[in-house]
Amino acid sequence: MWRLYQFPLCPFSRKVRLLLGEKGVPFELVREDPWAASDMFFNLNPAGRTPVMVHAEQELVLSDSRAISEYFEETVDAAPMINGPAANRAEIRRLVALFDENFYADVTAPLLSERMKKRIVLREPPDSRMLREAMRLAHGHLDYMDWLIDTRPWLAGPTMSMADLAAAAQISVADYLGGIDWSGHEQTRGWYSVFKSRPSFRPLLTERMEVIRPPAHYAEIDI
Amino acid sequence: MWRLYQFPLCPFSRKVRLLLGEKGVPFELVREDPWAASDMFFNLNPAGRTPVMVHAEQELVLSDSRAISEYFEETVDAAPMINGPAANRAEIRRLVALFDENFYADVTAPLLSERMKKRIVLREPPDSRMLREAMRLAHGHLDYMDWLIDTRPWLAGPTMSMADLAAAAQISVADYLGGIDWSGHEQTRGWYSVFKSRPSFRPLLTERMEVIRPPAHYAEIDI
Repeated sequence: MWRLYQFPLCPFSRKVRLLLGEKGVPFELVREDPWAASDMFFNLNPAGRTPVMVHAEQELVLSDSRAISEYFEETVDAAPMINGPAANRAEIRRLVALFDENFYADVTAPLLSERMKKRIVLREPPDSRMLREAMRLAHGHLDYMDWLIDTRPWLAGPTMSMADLAAAAQISVADYLGGIDWSGHEQTRGWYSVFKSRPSFRPLLTERMEVIRPPAHYAEIDI
Repeated sequence: MWRLYQFPLCPFSRKVRLLLGEKGVPFELVREDPWAASDMFFNLNPAGRTPVMVHAEQELVLSDSRAISEYFEETVDAAPMINGPAANRAEIRRLVALFDENFYADVTAPLLSERMKKRIVLREPPDSRMLREAMRLAHGHLDYMDWLIDTRPWLAGPTMSMADLAAAAQISVADYLGGIDWSGHEQTRGWYSVFKSRPSFRPLLTERMEVIRPPAHYAEIDI
Protein backbone atom coordinates (compact mmCIF):
# COMPACT_ATOMS: atom_id res chain seq x y z
CA MET A 1 0.00 0.00 0.00
CA TRP A 2 1.26 3.46 -0.90
CA ARG A 3 1.57 6.08 1.83
CA LEU A 4 1.33 9.76 0.83
CA TYR A 5 3.05 12.26 3.13
CA GLN A 6 1.08 15.48 2.83
CA PHE A 7 -0.85 18.21 4.62
CA PRO A 8 -4.42 19.25 3.83
CA LEU A 9 -3.61 22.57 2.10
CA CYS A 10 -0.55 21.42 0.10
CA PRO A 11 -1.57 22.00 -3.54
CA PHE A 12 1.10 19.62 -4.86
CA SER A 13 -0.14 16.81 -2.61
CA ARG A 14 -3.67 17.58 -3.80
CA LYS A 15 -2.57 17.22 -7.43
CA VAL A 16 -1.13 13.77 -6.64
CA ARG A 17 -4.28 12.79 -4.71
CA LEU A 18 -6.44 13.75 -7.70
CA LEU A 19 -4.21 11.69 -10.01
CA LEU A 20 -4.26 8.62 -7.75
CA GLY A 21 -8.04 8.98 -7.38
CA GLU A 22 -8.55 9.16 -11.16
CA LYS A 23 -6.25 6.18 -11.70
CA GLY A 24 -7.81 4.14 -8.90
CA VAL A 25 -4.53 3.66 -7.00
CA PRO A 26 -5.25 3.03 -3.27
CA PHE A 27 -3.18 4.99 -0.75
CA GLU A 28 -3.24 6.15 2.85
CA LEU A 29 -2.48 9.66 4.06
CA VAL A 30 0.28 10.60 6.52
CA ARG A 31 0.16 14.14 7.86
CA GLU A 32 3.43 16.11 7.56
CA ASP A 33 3.26 19.80 8.40
CA PRO A 34 5.81 21.92 6.47
CA TRP A 35 6.63 24.04 9.53
CA ALA A 36 7.42 21.00 11.67
CA ALA A 37 9.09 18.54 9.29
CA SER A 38 10.80 15.72 11.17
CA ASP A 39 14.34 14.42 10.59
CA MET A 40 12.69 11.23 9.34
CA PHE A 41 10.90 13.28 6.70
CA PHE A 42 14.12 15.00 5.57
CA ASN A 43 15.68 11.54 5.28
CA LEU A 44 12.85 10.56 2.94
CA ASN A 45 13.15 13.76 0.91
CA PRO A 46 16.22 16.01 1.26
CA ALA A 47 14.17 18.79 -0.37
CA GLY A 48 11.99 18.69 2.77
CA ARG A 49 8.77 19.13 0.81
CA THR A 50 5.47 17.34 0.48
CA PRO A 51 4.31 15.25 -1.32
CA VAL A 52 6.41 12.15 -0.75
CA MET A 53 5.11 8.68 -1.58
CA VAL A 54 6.44 5.58 0.14
CA HIS A 55 5.78 1.94 -0.71
CA ALA A 56 7.43 0.01 2.12
CA GLU A 57 6.98 -3.47 0.57
CA GLN A 58 8.51 -2.36 -2.73
CA GLU A 59 11.15 -0.24 -0.94
CA LEU A 60 10.21 2.76 -3.07
CA VAL A 61 10.37 6.42 -2.06
CA LEU A 62 9.14 8.99 -4.60
CA SER A 63 9.50 12.77 -4.15
CA ASP A 64 8.48 15.79 -6.21
CA SER A 65 4.90 15.99 -7.44
CA ARG A 66 5.85 15.95 -11.12
CA ALA A 67 8.21 12.98 -10.75
CA ILE A 68 5.43 11.18 -8.83
CA SER A 69 2.87 12.01 -11.55
CA GLU A 70 5.15 10.74 -14.32
CA TYR A 71 5.83 7.54 -12.33
CA PHE A 72 2.13 6.67 -12.01
CA GLU A 73 1.52 7.70 -15.61
CA GLU A 74 4.21 5.22 -16.69
CA THR A 75 3.16 2.37 -14.41
CA VAL A 76 -0.67 2.58 -14.32
CA ASP A 77 -2.51 2.43 -17.65
CA ALA A 78 -5.91 3.57 -16.34
CA ALA A 79 -6.95 7.21 -16.90
CA PRO A 80 -3.95 8.47 -18.90
CA MET A 81 -3.22 12.08 -17.94
CA ILE A 82 -0.09 12.87 -20.02
CA ASN A 83 -1.30 11.60 -23.36
CA GLY A 84 -1.45 12.26 -27.07
CA PRO A 85 1.42 13.02 -29.47
CA ALA A 86 4.66 14.54 -28.14
CA ALA A 87 3.51 18.11 -28.88
CA ASN A 88 0.32 17.59 -26.83
CA ARG A 89 2.32 16.07 -24.00
CA ALA A 90 4.60 19.13 -24.08
CA GLU A 91 1.53 21.38 -23.87
CA ILE A 92 0.21 19.41 -20.86
CA ARG A 93 3.58 19.70 -19.11
CA ARG A 94 3.89 23.42 -19.97
CA LEU A 95 0.56 24.10 -18.27
CA VAL A 96 1.41 21.93 -15.27
CA ALA A 97 4.53 24.08 -14.81
CA LEU A 98 2.47 27.26 -15.25
CA PHE A 99 0.12 26.24 -12.41
CA ASP A 100 2.79 24.61 -10.21
CA GLU A 101 5.18 27.54 -10.51
CA ASN A 102 3.47 30.76 -11.63
CA PHE A 103 -0.02 30.32 -10.14
CA TYR A 104 1.55 28.94 -6.97
CA ALA A 105 4.06 31.81 -6.62
CA ASP A 106 1.53 34.51 -7.54
CA VAL A 107 -1.55 33.26 -5.67
CA THR A 108 -1.37 30.08 -3.58
CA ALA A 109 1.94 30.70 -1.80
CA PRO A 110 1.09 34.24 -0.58
CA LEU A 111 -2.37 33.05 0.53
CA LEU A 112 -0.81 30.12 2.44
CA SER A 113 1.71 32.49 4.00
CA GLU A 114 -0.78 35.20 5.01
CA ARG A 115 -3.81 33.07 5.94
CA MET A 116 -2.28 29.78 7.15
CA LYS A 117 1.32 30.23 8.29
CA LYS A 118 0.76 33.60 10.00
CA ARG A 119 -2.38 32.35 11.71
CA ILE A 120 -1.27 28.89 12.82
CA VAL A 121 2.51 29.21 13.18
CA LEU A 122 3.64 32.83 13.48
CA ARG A 123 0.47 34.19 15.14
CA GLU A 124 0.76 37.47 13.26
CA PRO A 125 -1.97 39.38 11.44
CA PRO A 126 -2.10 38.93 7.65
CA ASP A 127 -0.73 41.67 5.39
CA SER A 128 -3.78 42.97 3.53
CA ARG A 129 -1.68 44.37 0.67
CA MET A 130 -0.20 40.91 0.02
CA LEU A 131 -3.70 39.40 0.02
CA ARG A 132 -5.05 42.02 -2.38
CA GLU A 133 -2.11 41.51 -4.73
CA ALA A 134 -2.57 37.71 -4.69
CA MET A 135 -6.28 38.12 -5.52
CA ARG A 136 -5.44 40.58 -8.29
CA LEU A 137 -2.96 38.14 -9.83
CA ALA A 138 -5.52 35.32 -9.47
CA HIS A 139 -7.82 37.23 -11.84
CA GLY A 140 -5.07 37.27 -14.46
CA HIS A 141 -4.60 33.51 -14.18
CA LEU A 142 -8.38 32.91 -14.32
CA ASP A 143 -8.58 35.14 -17.41
CA TYR A 144 -6.01 32.92 -19.11
CA MET A 145 -7.93 29.79 -18.05
CA ASP A 146 -11.18 31.31 -19.39
CA TRP A 147 -9.43 31.77 -22.72
CA LEU A 148 -8.09 28.20 -22.75
CA ILE A 149 -11.54 26.78 -21.96
CA ASP A 150 -13.09 28.94 -24.70
CA THR A 151 -10.84 27.24 -27.23
CA ARG A 152 -10.50 23.66 -25.94
CA PRO A 153 -12.69 21.08 -24.15
CA TRP A 154 -10.08 20.73 -21.37
CA LEU A 155 -7.19 23.02 -20.43
CA ALA A 156 -4.51 21.29 -22.52
CA GLY A 157 -6.63 19.80 -25.30
CA PRO A 158 -9.35 17.29 -26.13
CA THR A 159 -9.11 15.19 -22.95
CA MET A 160 -8.68 15.73 -19.22
CA SER A 161 -4.99 15.80 -18.32
CA MET A 162 -2.47 16.62 -15.59
CA ALA A 163 -2.94 20.28 -16.60
CA ASP A 164 -6.52 20.15 -15.30
CA LEU A 165 -5.46 18.33 -12.13
CA ALA A 166 -2.63 20.82 -11.47
CA ALA A 167 -4.97 23.80 -11.99
CA ALA A 168 -7.77 22.33 -9.86
CA ALA A 169 -5.31 21.55 -7.06
CA GLN A 170 -4.00 25.13 -6.91
CA ILE A 171 -7.46 26.68 -7.25
CA SER A 172 -8.93 24.44 -4.55
CA VAL A 173 -6.36 25.64 -2.01
CA ALA A 174 -6.72 29.29 -3.08
CA ASP A 175 -10.52 28.94 -2.88
CA TYR A 176 -10.30 27.32 0.57
CA LEU A 177 -8.30 30.35 1.71
CA GLY A 178 -10.88 32.78 0.29
CA GLY A 179 -8.58 34.01 -2.49
CA ILE A 180 -10.76 33.30 -5.52
CA ASP A 181 -13.36 35.83 -6.67
CA TRP A 182 -15.34 33.90 -9.27
CA SER A 183 -17.19 36.91 -10.73
CA GLY A 184 -16.43 37.37 -14.41
CA HIS A 185 -14.96 33.87 -14.81
CA GLU A 186 -17.97 31.84 -15.96
CA GLN A 187 -15.92 29.50 -18.15
CA THR A 188 -13.46 28.56 -15.43
CA ARG A 189 -16.25 28.38 -12.84
CA GLY A 190 -18.12 25.89 -15.07
CA TRP A 191 -14.98 23.82 -15.63
CA TYR A 192 -14.22 23.80 -11.88
CA SER A 193 -17.82 22.89 -10.99
CA VAL A 194 -17.64 19.80 -13.23
CA PHE A 195 -14.36 18.93 -11.57
CA LYS A 196 -15.68 19.23 -8.03
CA SER A 197 -18.32 16.59 -8.74
CA ARG A 198 -15.72 13.93 -9.60
CA PRO A 199 -15.21 11.13 -7.03
CA SER A 200 -11.45 11.90 -6.97
CA PHE A 201 -12.22 15.42 -5.71
CA ARG A 202 -14.76 14.64 -2.96
CA PRO A 203 -12.24 13.57 -0.28
CA LEU A 204 -10.34 16.86 -0.75
CA LEU A 205 -13.47 18.99 -0.45
CA THR A 206 -14.67 17.36 2.76
CA GLU A 207 -11.28 17.60 4.50
CA ARG A 208 -10.68 20.55 6.83
CA MET A 209 -7.52 22.21 8.11
CA GLU A 210 -7.71 22.90 11.83
CA VAL A 211 -8.42 26.53 12.86
CA ILE A 212 -8.90 27.77 9.28
CA ARG A 213 -12.39 27.44 7.80
CA PRO A 214 -13.15 27.71 4.09
CA PRO A 215 -15.89 30.01 2.70
CA ALA A 216 -19.42 28.61 2.45
CA HIS A 217 -19.23 27.94 -1.30
CA TYR A 218 -15.97 25.96 -1.06
CA ALA A 219 -17.37 22.41 -1.07
CA GLU A 220 -20.58 23.20 -3.00
CA ILE A 221 -20.65 21.71 -6.48
CA ASP A 222 -22.93 24.44 -7.85
CA ILE A 223 -21.06 27.51 -6.77
CA MET B 1 15.63 24.62 -37.48
CA TRP B 2 14.84 25.09 -33.79
CA ARG B 3 15.31 28.52 -32.23
CA LEU B 4 16.03 28.71 -28.49
CA TYR B 5 15.04 31.94 -26.71
CA GLN B 6 17.46 32.36 -23.82
CA PHE B 7 20.01 34.56 -22.11
CA PRO B 8 23.59 33.56 -21.28
CA LEU B 9 23.13 33.13 -17.50
CA CYS B 10 19.72 31.41 -17.55
CA PRO B 11 20.38 28.01 -15.90
CA PHE B 12 17.22 26.47 -17.37
CA SER B 13 18.24 27.49 -20.89
CA ARG B 14 21.69 26.03 -20.18
CA LYS B 15 20.11 22.70 -19.17
CA VAL B 16 18.23 22.60 -22.48
CA ARG B 17 21.39 23.57 -24.43
CA LEU B 18 23.30 20.72 -22.78
CA LEU B 19 20.51 18.28 -23.65
CA LEU B 20 20.32 19.43 -27.30
CA GLY B 21 24.11 19.25 -27.53
CA GLU B 22 24.21 15.71 -26.15
CA LYS B 23 21.39 14.61 -28.48
CA GLY B 24 22.91 16.35 -31.51
CA VAL B 25 19.84 18.51 -32.22
CA PRO B 26 20.86 21.66 -34.15
CA PHE B 27 19.46 24.98 -32.93
CA GLU B 28 20.15 28.70 -33.06
CA LEU B 29 20.12 31.07 -30.10
CA VAL B 30 17.87 34.11 -29.73
CA ARG B 31 18.74 36.47 -26.88
CA GLU B 32 15.81 37.35 -24.58
CA ASP B 33 16.68 39.28 -21.42
CA PRO B 34 14.31 38.58 -18.51
CA TRP B 35 14.20 42.21 -17.45
CA ALA B 36 13.18 43.40 -20.93
CA ALA B 37 10.87 40.67 -22.22
CA SER B 38 8.94 41.84 -25.29
CA ASP B 39 5.20 41.47 -25.89
CA MET B 40 6.15 39.02 -28.64
CA PHE B 41 7.93 36.89 -26.05
CA PHE B 42 4.92 36.91 -23.68
CA ASN B 43 2.80 35.81 -26.64
CA LEU B 44 5.13 32.84 -27.09
CA ASN B 45 5.13 32.00 -23.38
CA PRO B 46 2.53 33.54 -21.04
CA ALA B 47 4.80 32.57 -18.13
CA GLY B 48 7.28 35.12 -19.53
CA ARG B 49 10.29 32.90 -18.85
CA THR B 50 13.19 31.47 -20.80
CA PRO B 51 13.78 28.93 -22.27
CA VAL B 52 11.27 28.84 -25.12
CA MET B 53 11.86 26.75 -28.24
CA VAL B 54 10.25 27.58 -31.56
CA HIS B 55 10.19 25.53 -34.74
CA ALA B 56 8.58 27.84 -37.30
CA GLU B 57 8.28 25.24 -40.09
CA GLN B 58 6.57 22.74 -37.74
CA GLU B 59 4.54 25.52 -36.08
CA LEU B 60 5.71 24.32 -32.67
CA VAL B 61 6.28 26.44 -29.56
CA LEU B 62 7.61 24.68 -26.45
CA SER B 63 7.94 26.36 -23.04
CA ASP B 64 9.20 25.22 -19.63
CA SER B 65 12.60 23.54 -19.45
CA ARG B 66 11.25 20.25 -18.13
CA ALA B 67 8.47 20.05 -20.75
CA ILE B 68 11.12 20.80 -23.41
CA SER B 69 13.44 18.12 -22.03
CA GLU B 70 10.69 15.49 -22.00
CA TYR B 71 9.73 16.45 -25.58
CA PHE B 72 13.24 15.86 -26.94
CA GLU B 73 13.60 12.72 -24.83
CA GLU B 74 10.42 11.38 -26.46
CA THR B 75 11.23 12.45 -30.03
CA VAL B 76 15.03 11.96 -30.30
CA ASP B 77 16.41 8.50 -29.54
CA ALA B 78 20.08 9.52 -29.31
CA ALA B 79 21.64 9.97 -25.85
CA PRO B 80 18.67 9.00 -23.64
CA MET B 81 18.68 11.16 -20.51
CA ILE B 82 15.49 9.98 -18.71
CA ASN B 83 16.09 6.27 -18.94
CA GLY B 84 15.90 2.98 -17.07
CA PRO B 85 12.94 1.45 -15.19
CA ALA B 86 10.17 3.71 -13.85
CA ALA B 87 11.80 3.97 -10.40
CA ASN B 88 15.08 5.20 -11.96
CA ARG B 89 13.19 7.69 -14.09
CA ALA B 90 11.46 8.95 -10.94
CA GLU B 91 14.86 9.35 -9.26
CA ILE B 92 16.18 11.31 -12.27
CA ARG B 93 13.13 13.60 -12.20
CA ARG B 94 13.35 14.04 -8.40
CA LEU B 95 16.92 15.28 -8.72
CA VAL B 96 16.07 17.54 -11.67
CA ALA B 97 13.42 19.16 -9.45
CA LEU B 98 15.92 19.41 -6.57
CA PHE B 99 18.38 21.37 -8.75
CA ASP B 100 15.76 23.34 -10.71
CA GLU B 101 13.86 24.38 -7.58
CA ASN B 102 15.94 24.06 -4.41
CA PHE B 103 19.46 24.73 -5.73
CA TYR B 104 18.07 27.53 -7.89
CA ALA B 105 16.12 29.17 -5.04
CA ASP B 106 18.95 28.75 -2.51
CA VAL B 107 21.97 29.60 -4.66
CA THR B 108 21.51 30.56 -8.32
CA ALA B 109 18.58 32.97 -7.95
CA PRO B 110 20.14 35.09 -5.16
CA LEU B 111 23.46 35.20 -7.06
CA LEU B 112 21.67 36.30 -10.24
CA SER B 113 19.78 38.93 -8.26
CA GLU B 114 22.79 40.32 -6.37
CA ARG B 115 25.52 40.02 -9.02
CA MET B 116 23.62 40.35 -12.33
CA LYS B 117 20.30 42.16 -11.85
CA LYS B 118 21.59 44.72 -9.35
CA ARG B 119 24.66 45.40 -11.49
CA ILE B 120 23.11 45.53 -14.96
CA VAL B 121 19.51 46.57 -14.33
CA LEU B 122 19.04 48.19 -10.91
CA ARG B 123 22.56 49.64 -10.59
CA GLU B 124 22.60 49.01 -6.85
CA PRO B 125 25.38 47.46 -4.76
CA PRO B 126 25.01 43.75 -3.92
CA ASP B 127 23.84 42.72 -0.44
CA SER B 128 26.82 40.90 1.04
CA ARG B 129 24.66 39.02 3.57
CA MET B 130 22.57 37.57 0.74
CA LEU B 131 25.74 36.50 -1.08
CA ARG B 132 27.22 34.87 2.02
CA GLU B 133 23.98 33.00 2.68
CA ALA B 134 23.81 31.75 -0.96
CA MET B 135 27.41 30.50 -0.73
CA ARG B 136 26.68 28.83 2.62
CA LEU B 137 23.66 27.02 1.13
CA ALA B 138 25.75 26.04 -1.92
CA HIS B 139 28.03 24.05 0.39
CA GLY B 140 25.04 22.08 1.63
CA HIS B 141 24.00 21.21 -1.92
CA LEU B 142 27.58 20.28 -2.88
CA ASP B 143 27.80 18.05 0.24
CA TYR B 144 24.70 16.19 -0.97
CA MET B 145 26.20 15.87 -4.47
CA ASP B 146 29.48 14.57 -2.99
CA TRP B 147 27.45 11.88 -1.22
CA LEU B 148 25.54 10.95 -4.38
CA ILE B 149 28.78 10.69 -6.39
CA ASP B 150 30.33 8.54 -3.62
CA THR B 151 27.55 6.01 -4.11
CA ARG B 152 26.78 6.14 -7.84
CA PRO B 153 28.70 6.65 -11.11
CA TRP B 154 26.42 9.56 -12.06
CA LEU B 155 24.07 11.65 -9.92
CA ALA B 156 20.92 9.60 -10.51
CA GLY B 157 22.42 6.16 -11.19
CA PRO B 158 24.58 4.15 -13.60
CA THR B 159 24.36 6.51 -16.60
CA MET B 160 24.49 10.24 -17.30
CA SER B 161 20.98 11.69 -17.10
CA MET B 162 18.96 14.90 -16.96
CA ALA B 163 19.91 15.05 -13.26
CA ASP B 164 23.56 15.63 -14.24
CA LEU B 165 22.58 18.19 -16.88
CA ALA B 166 20.30 20.06 -14.44
CA ALA B 167 23.01 20.13 -11.76
CA ALA B 168 25.76 21.20 -14.19
CA ALA B 169 23.55 23.97 -15.57
CA GLN B 170 22.88 25.46 -12.12
CA ILE B 171 26.49 25.06 -10.96
CA SER B 172 27.87 26.62 -14.14
CA VAL B 173 25.84 29.81 -13.58
CA ALA B 174 26.68 29.91 -9.86
CA ASP B 175 30.37 29.36 -10.69
CA TYR B 176 30.29 32.11 -13.35
CA LEU B 177 28.97 34.46 -10.66
CA GLY B 178 31.72 33.47 -8.21
CA GLY B 179 29.34 31.65 -5.86
CA ILE B 180 31.01 28.23 -5.77
CA ASP B 181 33.83 27.53 -3.31
CA TRP B 182 35.17 24.15 -4.46
CA SER B 183 37.31 23.46 -1.39
CA GLY B 184 36.21 20.29 0.37
CA HIS B 185 34.14 19.05 -2.56
CA GLU B 186 36.60 16.83 -4.43
CA GLN B 187 33.96 14.38 -5.65
CA THR B 188 31.72 17.03 -7.16
CA ARG B 189 34.73 18.93 -8.51
CA GLY B 190 35.88 15.77 -10.31
CA TRP B 191 32.38 15.10 -11.68
CA TYR B 192 32.10 18.72 -12.88
CA SER B 193 35.57 18.68 -14.45
CA VAL B 194 34.61 15.64 -16.56
CA PHE B 195 31.45 17.45 -17.55
CA LYS B 196 33.22 20.63 -18.62
CA SER B 197 35.28 18.70 -21.16
CA ARG B 198 32.20 17.48 -23.04
CA PRO B 199 31.54 19.08 -26.46
CA SER B 200 27.99 20.00 -25.34
CA PHE B 201 29.47 22.17 -22.56
CA ARG B 202 32.15 24.07 -24.51
CA PRO B 203 29.81 26.64 -26.12
CA LEU B 204 28.45 27.54 -22.67
CA LEU B 205 31.89 27.99 -21.14
CA THR B 206 33.17 30.28 -23.88
CA GLU B 207 30.11 32.54 -23.86
CA ARG B 208 30.27 35.73 -21.82
CA MET B 209 27.62 37.98 -20.34
CA GLU B 210 28.35 41.65 -20.97
CA VAL B 211 29.76 43.65 -18.00
CA ILE B 212 30.00 40.61 -15.69
CA ARG B 213 33.21 38.57 -15.90
CA PRO B 214 33.56 35.04 -14.49
CA PRO B 215 36.44 34.02 -12.19
CA ALA B 216 39.66 32.77 -13.84
CA HIS B 217 38.92 29.07 -13.18
CA TYR B 218 35.42 29.22 -14.72
CA ALA B 219 36.21 27.86 -18.20
CA GLU B 220 39.26 25.77 -17.18
CA ILE B 221 38.68 22.04 -17.43
CA ASP B 222 41.22 21.27 -14.70
CA ILE B 223 40.00 23.52 -11.95
